[in-house]
Amino acid sequence: MRIWSFAKGHGTMNDFVLVKDRSGMLHPSSEDVRFLCDRRAGIGADGMLRAVKADSVPEWKGPGDLWFMDYRNADGSIAEMCGNGLRVFVKWLLEEDLVSGDVVDIATRAGLRRALPHHDGTITVTMGSPQWSADEVDLRLDGRQWTGHRVDVGNPHCVVREPNPSALDLAGHLEIDPVAFPYGANVEFVDQVGPDHLRLRVVERGVGETMSCGTGVVAAAWDAANTRAEPHLDGCAYTVDVPGGALTVTFAPDGQAHLTGPAVIVARGEVALPDAR
Amino acid sequence: MRIWSFAKGHGTMNDFVLVKDRSGMLHPSSEDVRFLCDRRAGIGADGMLRAVKADSVPEWKGPGDLWFMDYRNADGSIAEMCGNGLRVFVKWLLEEDLVSGDVVDIATRAGLRRALPHHDGTITVTMGSPQWSADEVDLRLDGRQWTGHRVDVGNPHCVVREPNPSALDLAGHLEIDPVAFPYGANVEFVDQVGPDHLRLRVVERGVGETMSCGTGVVAAAWDAANTRAEPHLDGCAYTVDVPGGALTVTFAPDGQAHLTGPAVIVARGEVALPDAR
Repeated sequence: MRIWSFAKGHGTMNDFVLVKDRSGMLHPSSEDVRFLCDRRAGIGADGMLRAVKADSVPEWKGPGDLWFMDYRNADGSIAEMCGNGLRVFVKWLLEEDLVSGDVVDIATRAGLRRALPHHDGTITVTMGSPQWSADEVDLRLDGRQWTGHRVDVGNPHCVVREPNPSALDLAGHLEIDPVAFPYGANVEFVDQVGPDHLRLRVVERGVGETMSCGTGVVAAAWDAANTRAEPHLDGCAYTVDVPGGALTVTFAPDGQAHLTGPAVIVARGEVALPDAR
Repeated sequence: MRIWSFAKGHGTMNDFVLVKDRSGMLHPSSEDVRFLCDRRAGIGADGMLRAVKADSVPEWKGPGDLWFMDYRNADGSIAEMCGNGLRVFVKWLLEEDLVSGDVVDIATRAGLRRALPHHDGTITVTMGSPQWSADEVDLRLDGRQWTGHRVDVGNPHCVVREPNPSALDLAGHLEIDPVAFPYGANVEFVDQVGPDHLRLRVVERGVGETMSCGTGVVAAAWDAANTRAEPHLDGCAYTVDVPGGALTVTFAPDGQAHLTGPAVIVARGEVALPDAR
């Protein structure tokens, strides 16, 4: 049996088990990640976030004194980045006194990301520059059809407009345009409730409906910005309601998306992992 | 914000948040229980088990030096007893050095229960004397019909035989005989795979399908014992496979059911509860 220190936290109900591993000694296997994220046999979460000093991460070529966010999905697979996860990761580093200041740079597999903690407890994180295409893409769900757009936020999104997302049965069969999305996509059903206010439900690729998706929120906002009667992209901001809470997206002059939202650390402790087989 | 010490554990995947409250000072509200059991915003579990010294529990009339198991469902409601929960509760008390010995008596809302820890880590708990009725009761699920028996294990069970429980869609609409079960029932679909070996799936009243149900396992075994060609009840034993693992049921000469199975404490730590509203 191995005893690891852990924390558990969430951002708009997207939840994570956090593990500190300064020198990269723990070497969590896929099985370990699945155990930690198992909601009954383990602790339970959508994913694991492991904090390693970047100079202990061979694949990282940037500054070595940063913390590297090793993000794994609940199934044990490696993932590049997660907007909700990054906020939770930074909140935890702050609470553990492992970082400080108004600007916290984090090393991720998607490159350097910047976090700006605010006095009200929310955190803004940089999400890169989304790519939008005016080409129309088709989506089908149980016989109904929508036409929307492809937005790339590091991962592919199919964004469609739907005036009543809450009435949809998202457990149904989704058919995503196979030409535009040869490797599938996250799908956002977006209702524009005001000029700068969206609400959406999201179906994540390989997972199903989730309570929140940081890249999905950015994709929906970027689609709204690009389809305004008078598109103005630089500096525009959207409030986006997801089932798990509310997030804000702004677009900087350089095209970078900034995602702002809450992050909560709920528990800290020690977890007993079964011995590796 | 309130900081409580907690543990998390499970018995055949029926999982619990455990809270030590020796003098009954914590007064967890229904909202607190729902928070602790919330799988995303909190820690996550099927229920909370709070350990209070029995002399601090006004409703307990027995010996005051026992630990009282305050069991709450995930929705915050009070429950009398839980066979899987009792094993996990005793395992945790043992690991915390709060009890010791070969026999551990626990105060519960269903009365005194006895636990027998074994060297292999499993624990046997007493489950009272089930009541079986030879009257046939009807059950319907999405147009299919079964005939079975009513078994009372402190709570009502409708036990039916089904050669292939794994093929059933238990999310469907269950109709339980309203005369035999005016307040509903837990339903067990039981396949007898050997003379002393059952496997089952269970639908718990007000919850839906669960990975395991201690009283349901006892009900299924008692029904099997009572419907043998040559019923012999005293001393008979069944292995019962549930989706979350395997349990053993034996019946003592006094009619008491004994349930044996695993119990695992996975994590310990501190949890931050939001202030009461």
